[in-house]
Amino acid sequence: MAKGVVPRTARRIPDATIRRLPAYLRALEAEAGQRLTSAALGVLTGFSSEQVRKDLAYFGAFGTRGVGYPAQDLASEIRHILGLDRELKAALFGAGHLGTALARYVAATHRDVRIVAIFDPDPEKAGSEIAGTAVTSLVDLEGEVERLGVAVAILAVPEAAAEPLARRLAAVGVRGFLNFAPVMLSLPPALDGGPPITIHNIDLSIELQTLAYFVQVHETASV
Amino acid sequence: MAKGVVPRTARRIPDATIRRLPAYLRALEAEAGQRLTSAALGVLTGFSSEQVRKDLAYFGAFGTRGVGYPAQDLASEIRHILGLDRELKAALFGAGHLGTALARYVAATHRDVRIVAIFDPDPEKAGSEIAGTAVTSLVDLEGEVERLGVAVAILAVPEAAAEPLARRLAAVGVRGFLNFAPVMLSLPPALDGGPPITIHNIDLSIELQTLAYFVQVHETASV
Repeated sequence: MAKGVVPRTARRIPDATIRRLPAYLRALEAEAGQRLTSAALGVLTGFSSEQVRKDLAYFGAFGTRGVGYPAQDLASEIRHILGLDRELKAALFGAGHLGTALARYVAATHRDVRIVAIFDPDPEKAGSEIAGTAVTSLVDLEGEVERLGVAVAILAVPEAAAEPLARRLAAVGVRGFLNFAPVMLSLPPALDGGPPITIHNIDLSIELQTLAYFVQVHETASV
Repeated sequence: MAKGVVPRTARRIPDATIRRLPAYLRALEAEAGQRLTSAALGVLTGFSSEQVRKDLAYFGAFGTRGVGYPAQDLASEIRHILGLDRELKAALFGAGHLGTALARYVAATHRDVRIVAIFDPDPEKAGSEIAGTAVTSLVDLEGEVERLGVAVAILAVPEAAAEPLARRLAAVGVRGFLNFAPVMLSLPPALDGGPPITIHNIDLSIELQTLAYFVQVHETASV
C-alpha cells in the first residue's frame, strides 16, 4: 500500500460520503499514474477541496500537502471500501426500452457489477439476448435467482409490478434494489433475522419536478 | 384557498425540502378528496411525521391536529410552489433505448412537463415518432430550441457528446439539464447576466456502486 494511504479503520463512514466515493473513484481512475491534491480532485468532481479532504480522512487517506494522493492507490482503496473488488451479481427485471438501455450500460461500463440474468414476462422476448445475457421468462423466478446467487435486482418494470416482484425477490435473499418504477417500495427492513434490505429509488418524476422548480425560481429571480 | 393552507411566504425553502415535495404531491394526488395527517403522509411517503410537518411549515401549511391537511388543496399548493401549474417545455436528446423509454415515460405521466422536440444525429431516425413527438436531426439545433422555447434539456446521449451539447444549449437559453450521460457536466454558472443553470445528474454508476457498498456492508455485518 502506498505512502499516504493507510488501511481503513472500522470507523463508520457517513452515507453522504459513501455517495461521493464513486465520483472520486471515476476521477482517480481517469488520472491513474498521477498524484492528485484535494483541490485537483475537487475540480474534477465538483466538490470543494475541504469536502474532499474531509471525506477521504474518514478512511484514513491523508494526502501530503502540495503533493497529494497517489491516484491509483487511492482508487484501489475506494474500490475496496465500496466492495467493488468483488463482483456484484445483479438481475435485471423488464426487457423494455429502459431495461435494454440499462443492460447495455452496465455491460459497457461496470466491470464490478455483472448482470447474470434478465427476466421479462413477455414470451416473445424469452430466448432473445441483450448485451450477451439471455432474457428469461418468470416461470422459475425464485429458483433461478437462488441458483445464480443474485445479490441485487434492477427493476425496470411497470409501477404495479414493482412491489410484488420486490417482495418475492426479498423472500429469496435479494438484498439490494435499484428501482426505476415510479413507486416507493415498501419492504420489511429485514426478513427473519436475515441481512437488511437496501433500496435505491431512481425517480424521474422527482427529478423533473424539482428541476421545474429550480428553473422557474431562477426565472422569477432574474426578472 | 382552504382552511389550514395559507399562502406561501417569500421565505426560502431548503433544497432538501423541495426534493421531498414531489413525493408528498404524489401521495396527496392519490388521496384527493381526503384529509391527511402528517403521520399518514409520512407513512405514504416513507418520511417521519416530524419531517413532513417541518417541510410543510416552510410554506405555511398547518394541518389541524388530528384532522390533518385537505389533500387536494395541499396538492395544488405544492404544484404551485414547484411551478407545475405552468407547462415546462423540455427537449430530449438521444433517441436510443434510454431516450425512447424517457419520452414514453414523460408522455405517460407528466401533464406538467411536455417534450416538444426529440433530437438525434442518426439520419435514419429523423422523421420517426416517439410517443407522438417527431425525431429531428441536429441540423438547425439552436434555431429549433429557440423557436420552441425549450426551458429544459434531457440528455440521453453518449458520454463524449453531453458537455459540448449542453454548452450549445446553454448558449441559446436552456436553463435546466437532466443529464443521464455518465459525466459531470461543467457549465458556466450563468451566461452574460442570464438566469443561472441547474443541472441534475442521474448517474447510474453512482447508484450501482453505492448499492454495492450497502449490500456488502450489511452482508459483513450479518455474518
